Amino acid sequence: MRIVAADTGGALLDDAYNPIGLIATVAVLVEKPYRTASLSRAKYADPFNYDMSGRQAIRDEAYLAVELAREVKPDVVHLDSTIGGIEVRKLDEPTIEALGITDRGKEVWKDLSKDLQPLAKKLWEEMGIEIIAIGKWSVPVRIAEIYSGIYTAKWAIEYARKNGKVLVGLPRYMRVDIKPGKIYGESLDPREGGLFGEIEANTKGVSWELYPNPLVRRYMVLEVWKE
Amino acid sequence: MRIVAADTGGALLDDAYNPIGLIATVAVLVEKPYRTASLSRAKYADPFNYDMSGRQAIRDEAYLAVELAREVKPDVVHLDSTIGGIEVRKLDEPTIEALGITDRGKEVWKDLSKDLQPLAKKLWEEMGIEIIAIGKWSVPVRIAEIYSGIYTAKWAIEYARKNGKVLVGLPRYMRVDIKPGKIYGESLDPREGGLFGEIEANTKGVSWELYPNPLVRRYMVLEVWKE
Amino acid sequence: MRIVAADTGGALLDDAYNPIGLIATVAVLVEKPYRTASLSRAKYADPFNYDMSGRQAIRDEAYLAVELAREVKPDVVHLDSTIGGIEVRKLDEPTIEALGITDRGKEVWKDLSKDLQPLAKKLWEEMGIEIIAIGKWSVPVRIAEIYSGIYTAKWAIEYARKNGKVLVGLPRYMRVDIKPGKIYGESLDPREGGLFGEIEANTKGVSWELYPNPLVRRYMVLEVWKE
Repeated sequence: MRIVAADTGGALLDDAYNPIGLIATVAVLVEKPYRTASLSRAKYADPFNYDMSGRQAIRDEAYLAVELAREVKPDVVHLDSTIGGIEVRKLDEPTIEALGITDRGKEVWKDLSKDLQPLAKKLWEEMGIEIIAIGKWSVPVRIAEIYSGIYTAKWAIEYARKNGKVLVGLPRYMRVDIKPGKIYGESLDPREGGLFGEIEANTKGVSWELYPNPLVRRYMVLEVWKE
Repeated sequence: MRIVAADTGGALLDDAYNPIGLIATVAVLVEKPYRTASLSRAKYADPFNYDMSGRQAIRDEAYLAVELAREVKPDVVHLDSTIGGIEVRKLDEPTIEALGITDRGKEVWKDLSKDLQPLAKKLWEEMGIEIIAIGKWSVPVRIAEIYSGIYTAKWAIEYARKNGKVLVGLPRYMRVDIKPGKIYGESLDPREGGLFGEIEANTKGVSWELYPNPLVRRYMVLEVWKE
Repeated sequence: MRIVAADTGGALLDDAYNPIGLIATVAVLVEKPYRTASLSRAKYADPFNYDMSGRQAIRDEAYLAVELAREVKPDVVHLDSTIGGIEVRKLDEPTIEALGITDRGKEVWKDLSKDLQPLAKKLWEEMGIEIIAIGKWSVPVRIAEIYSGIYTAKWAIEYARKNGKVLVGLPRYMRVDIKPGKIYGESLDPREGGLFGEIEANTKGVSWELYPNPLVRRYMVLEVWKE
């Protein structure tokens, strides 16, 4: 099975470890044995000017995933929204009303589906590829999340090189390792069966430290500064 | 403390990783230091013809556990049903009504208790051994679950030797390792303190691969094929 | 950030692994990189005569934390009560009523706040240090919990030396290692990013064994006996 998935993660933090805005939306192509991505594509947000309501993230993820899907022609596209693995092209108002989610979640999806339903319908009609809202059950979505942490580290290196110093928060229970010419990242949850990722990056001219976010158990902070 | 526990696990999967039916019910005897079984006994179901409602599993588990308990005379029997550690011989209708579980769970237990209450009463009266429905809190139940994954691997080897190839899903966050003459399995959750199991098996003539189930995070797929 | 946190943990167990009473309240000072304590202070309860309702624990934790905070002047104090990170000095009746917790939780906090609100107000007015009820999100609270397990091991060694043998239950998913002259402890959850602790202790004259509590998954039992 060849799966394209997308997720958004990594947050710019202030000195008290409070999130200011999210950093990286990533789409990945995941193939058997489903432990890493064979291809990844990132789009950076402006964390200083970010809508934290979550609505922007899922929209960005859908568009980036569709862009990658049109190129690599996967069997299916996974989005990070846990509404029962439903096909996004079928999300009309009555279907959303019938979902077992909160009223607030229904409002969000009624709004989102205005853009995402036509997008999903078009991908289905033109290429026969479904987009499903499978969320936390999907391993490819978790791999996309790990890559969003890796690309966040890349963003942090570039930011520190220009501005001196930066604190970013990685997605849940993952760590990164900044090596010469590349950034490696992996899940800290062994129950996931060894999920990881790696990208090439210019990693010169900075130092870094990784440690637990004292205010959010199971999340790590990456601190990067110019040497 | 000597504990007999039972559980059912391991699923035959189709090519899209959807479960077709469960494979192995296992009863184990667990003794201090409670990390593995000193004795295990398996009963295979027919996964091509399986009632996925869950009612058959708990019934099979109770009968297999009682069979093993009559032999090894443990202090107590643990079943995989999380209804507060209640003694099964006391499960009459008013007691079931008073349980803090869903209405559907109450219906299931009213039906189940017709068989299981007399079974538990008999074991108590003849041997002084209680059967308790302790479920997810019990370490021996988790060890039985790990053994159900190990016996599922054994079933998969035999199936592949006859039919060429098979995909099975292991119970939650566990892995198996197929070695010459034996199958080893262990929990992937280090918080459980190192739970594992091993059985002897004819492991000749097959190759295998273990990888994350892309559709069900924290569950592994075992693929076995004839060499 | 310099954080003082407190927690209570470790339980005396009977031979059937049932808890009799809690053992150690610990306050810790945690500083960057937030993986262990730079200072710890313990107060032992009498587990044979313990109020298991939980009200005594949080009161003891607050007093011990304030005692340590007055000495080491941290930026903030974390208590193990998950009521949204609210400042304890602001916990008057209308604020407690408005919390998103159970009615029973509200009753407990209305009672607790009689002592703890003045305590927190005084610390704030005299030293400018807030006490916040952040609970399970706080890494320093988890480090205090790990230290409560380490001090529980110390208590068990002293008890066994006098009385021959003892069983204690450690806090959730952690292990201890008793070495010559010291006791080491660490989290078994790698998602927490490597939390650990160590104290000096007289560890002579006893043997010990650590194993999973068969009745409470993810909790370990420490058995200590006189050599």
